[in-house]
Amino acid sequence: MQEHKGAQRIAEIVGREMYARDNAVRALGIELEQIGPGHARMGLTLGSAHVNSHGIAHGGVIYTLADAAFGYACNAYNFTTVAAQCEIAYMAPGRLGERLTAVGEERFSKGRSGIYDITVTNQKGEVIVMFRGHSRRIEGHNVPDIELQLNKT
Amino acid sequence: MQEHKGAQRIAEIVGREMYARDNAVRALGIELEQIGPGHARMGLTLGSAHVNSHGIAHGGVIYTLADAAFGYACNAYNFTTVAAQCEIAYMAPGRLGERLTAVGEERFSKGRSGIYDITVTNQKGEVIVMFRGHSRRIEGHNVPDIELQLNKT
Amino acid sequence: MQEHKGAQRIAEIVGREMYARDNAVRALGIELEQIGPGHARMGLTLGSAHVNSHGIAHGGVIYTLADAAFGYACNAYNFTTVAAQCEIAYMAPGRLGERLTAVGEERFSKGRSGIYDITVTNQKGEVIVMFRGHSRRIEGHNVPDIELQLNKT
Amino acid sequence: MQEHKGAQRIAEIVGREMYARDNAVRALGIELEQIGPGHARMGLTLGSAHVNSHGIAHGGVIYTLADAAFGYACNAYNFTTVAAQCEIAYMAPGRLGERLTAVGEERFSKGRSGIYDITVTNQKGEVIVMFRGHSRRIEGHNVPDIELQLNKT
Repeated sequence: MQEHKGAQRIAEIVGREMYARDNAVRALGIELEQIGPGHARMGLTLGSAHVNSHGIAHGGVIYTLADAAFGYACNAYNFTTVAAQCEIAYMAPGRLGERLTAVGEERFSKGRSGIYDITVTNQKGEVIVMFRGHSRRIEGHNVPDIELQLNKT
Repeated sequence: MQEHKGAQRIAEIVGREMYARDNAVRALGIELEQIGPGHARMGLTLGSAHVNSHGIAHGGVIYTLADAAFGYACNAYNFTTVAAQCEIAYMAPGRLGERLTAVGEERFSKGRSGIYDITVTNQKGEVIVMFRGHSRRIEGHNVPDIELQLNKT
Repeated sequence: MQEHKGAQRIAEIVGREMYARDNAVRALGIELEQIGPGHARMGLTLGSAHVNSHGIAHGGVIYTLADAAFGYACNAYNFTTVAAQCEIAYMAPGRLGERLTAVGEERFSKGRSGIYDITVTNQKGEVIVMFRGHSRRIEGHNVPDIELQLNKT
Repeated sequence: MQEHKGAQRIAEIVGREMYARDNAVRALGIELEQIGPGHARMGLTLGSAHVNSHGIAHGGVIYTLADAAFGYACNAYNFTTVAAQCEIAYMAPGRLGERLTAVGEERFSKGRSGIYDITVTNQKGEVIVMFRGHSRRIEGHNVPDIELQLNKT
């Protein structure tokens, strides 16, 4: 329990610090709603800057939302982790004004490799995208001085 | 020859009109460099708005660049076509200031289904991303009045 | 409850009849262990006919095991359903003498499209393969006269 | 030229020795038709042992054929190489009596990682499957004493 509480606090510090430096995600309007060990939830309200020539949300925008949930979930342990390979299936279009939520969950982890599944839904609960990401842990920590911050509070 | 010339002109008109309405792609700074039947090339110079918390290009940004090349390539015939499913493999990070180029090519087409391969390289020719997209033609045309425009010139 | 019981009985009849005609799966020694609506479990003991030149289970053999769990899970409703696209990630090798189990579960279903996740583990519970399958319902039923069989018992 | 000739001879020795030990591939009736550096072609005539309950070639059989072309292509340099992750898209069914040909080609190679594209066609040239494989070089050589064999002839 104590250990889990520690992992949760680490995840929250990592999430906060990553988000502060994450220009691309903030520029798009993606919000970090929740983070825990191997888990993250991100939200995005679709505006006119997110649509493509067909008048629906650009596939790259929805991918970025899903990829963000993947990235925060797999980095939440504070080990620097990158995407190696991702697959995305578009099940329904995202429309102007909709609120999209991406939930990312760890499905597998061994050594430096992980697999995460991310589902993007709209405010009615309809599935917009199913995404699977393969992560690879590299050198380094997302928040190198996390011990200091853990002791602070 | 004549027929190919027509297909090339159609692709160019479609590309120009799609790009004018493609808010998400323009907002990110992605440029349409070339388009032809089943083919497109897009470029992006990586700026500070494109980086993630690790200081490298966000996976979603590079995906969007590749997806754009895919989208223009598969829509170049003027039949409205959407992405059904995509896979992306990250081979090397994109770095601030680099010029990325995404080249998309049709590999397979039958009925309403298509497969496109997109390769993203940097200015040194290093492969950044390998992307494969599965397209699905739906109802409608990207430029409904293309006949008028073809006759204009 | 009654309805679920009906769906379970349909799945079992479909599984039995499909398996009787499924030469490729039987030739490889794959066993159907369990089937239900949108769910299937298959087993395989790795023998010398299953290994490749590296002395470990051939990737195609493990794929076939996972694909079989996918196929029975998505056909269990008695609507003829085929694989459109699949992704497989190899997490650990399968070794001679090991007992592999593939569990397939429906993750998404809408209209004629479905997504299924299949995990293959060995007898120690180690993950060998993570597989995601995209299904497409076509015309026809796996057991056309299922009503007769349902009434029989 | 000389170097290429050496690489071609290495590939042929590796192919011959791998195939002799490759029980799973031989058991299925898959033939190695051609091998070169980063390239392989395999063939299979679809018989009654290859069909599934729908009466068409089992997805796992066609996968195994494509995966074999992938495996021989990426192992042809004599460095032991395994599949990390594969994607397969089924474009048309394989039918009893058809002759299928899988051609595998290297698309990317850097350090220990590679990407190969495999296309399976039937005797009429129709595309049956598009397959992309991600390879990973591990320790060891497929034919440890290849120098002896190269000098022999």
